[in-house]
Amino acid sequence: MSPRTELHADGEHAAGRKATISREDLLAAALKLIGPHRSVSTLSLREVAREAGIAPNSFYRQFRDMDELAVALIDLAGHSLQKIIEAARQRAATDRSAVRGAVEAFMEQLRADDKLLHVLLREGTVGSDAFKQAVERQLRFFEEELRVSLIQINAAQGIVLREPALVAKAITRLVFAMGATAMDLPRERDPELIRELTLMSRMIIAGSRTLVAEPGL
Amino acid sequence: MSPRTELHADGEHAAGRKATISREDLLAAALKLIGPHRSVSTLSLREVAREAGIAPNSFYRQFRDMDELAVALIDLAGHSLQKIIEAARQRAATDRSAVRGAVEAFMEQLRADDKLLHVLLREGTVGSDAFKQAVERQLRFFEEELRVSLIQINAAQGIVLREPALVAKAITRLVFAMGATAMDLPRERDPELIRELTLMSRMIIAGSRTLVAEPGL
Repeated sequence: MSPRTELHADGEHAAGRKATISREDLLAAALKLIGPHRSVSTLSLREVAREAGIAPNSFYRQFRDMDELAVALIDLAGHSLQKIIEAARQRAATDRSAVRGAVEAFMEQLRADDKLLHVLLREGTVGSDAFKQAVERQLRFFEEELRVSLIQINAAQGIVLREPALVAKAITRLVFAMGATAMDLPRERDPELIRELTLMSRMIIAGSRTLVAEPGL
Repeated sequence: MSPRTELHADGEHAAGRKATISREDLLAAALKLIGPHRSVSTLSLREVAREAGIAPNSFYRQFRDMDELAVALIDLAGHSLQKIIEAARQRAATDRSAVRGAVEAFMEQLRADDKLLHVLLREGTVGSDAFKQAVERQLRFFEEELRVSLIQINAAQGIVLREPALVAKAITRLVFAMGATAMDLPRERDPELIRELTLMSRMIIAGSRTLVAEPGL
């Protein structure tokens, strides 16, 4: 390999290392490395730099440390949640079964090529405090959107729910936990998972309606 | 430090390394190392050997590799689940609210000194296939015990549940997911979590009773 250091037209050094790198390039490199047996918290800065084709020192131009990169990944994964919410609301407007539509929207994002939702599901329970807080923030955002939709849909039918915030939390945590187990399974299992998640969510909502009349807890 | 290698009375080499080590010693060493920011899958054999005070090579007398140790840890954590089931059944026999009793039994194990339940909750979604299967095995065992209890308790009141296996699965996955988030929180939050988990579980059970009359899905 030649020791020349001048830039090629495409922005690469002769040695194959890129001279400039964006945050997106580093996030993409990290995403390539994580998978069923690797979580973000086990990645080293050196590995990510190697995957991105830069010197380890160049990493610091974009992120303070790996922790900051991990939090940025979670924020990026939040876009997947936004897509689920939008798709679920569109289907609820046209379809009789809003619950099944929402579960299907979740599964479609789980199977999307970018695998961003995987990052969120895989990483929840291990990692730095900043990282866990970023995951928690995304879950809370999703729960709040779901709470609003639950109240709207049920109010339109004249139905009151017991503690809709708790209903939204139960459904979110359950769907995410089941999704975390499912994402490494073959897609042939998806219809069964959609059936299970739909029925589970309907049980929670139906139970919330029933318990509205019961005193305290 | 002296280079002598003969054993002291307590079974330690003069250099401070133990000559003999049991499986339990190695499991205890691994347990000491894992915590809010470390999962079993990030531990190296070398670290565990150092914590246990043995040479890395001595590790192989007890475990083939770290993966085998991780699976053994999960099986050990299964004893915590057995304790939860026993405590919940005792309370159900004396207490009016079987659901709250079971949730309290879960929280007591979550706060137990051995922290074995933490291993199970923290590790579910990252790790080798053998490891994930070991976690899944423990969850299924718990679900099956819960399913049997749910059918018994409801049958005694003449109540039929819709898909009790799915009810047991929903409650188990939800309680474990919420527990995984809660275990790193201060204990002052426990009463709130017990209230939330009890109400969520009751919603699922009540919903299952309501949906028994509904056709298909």
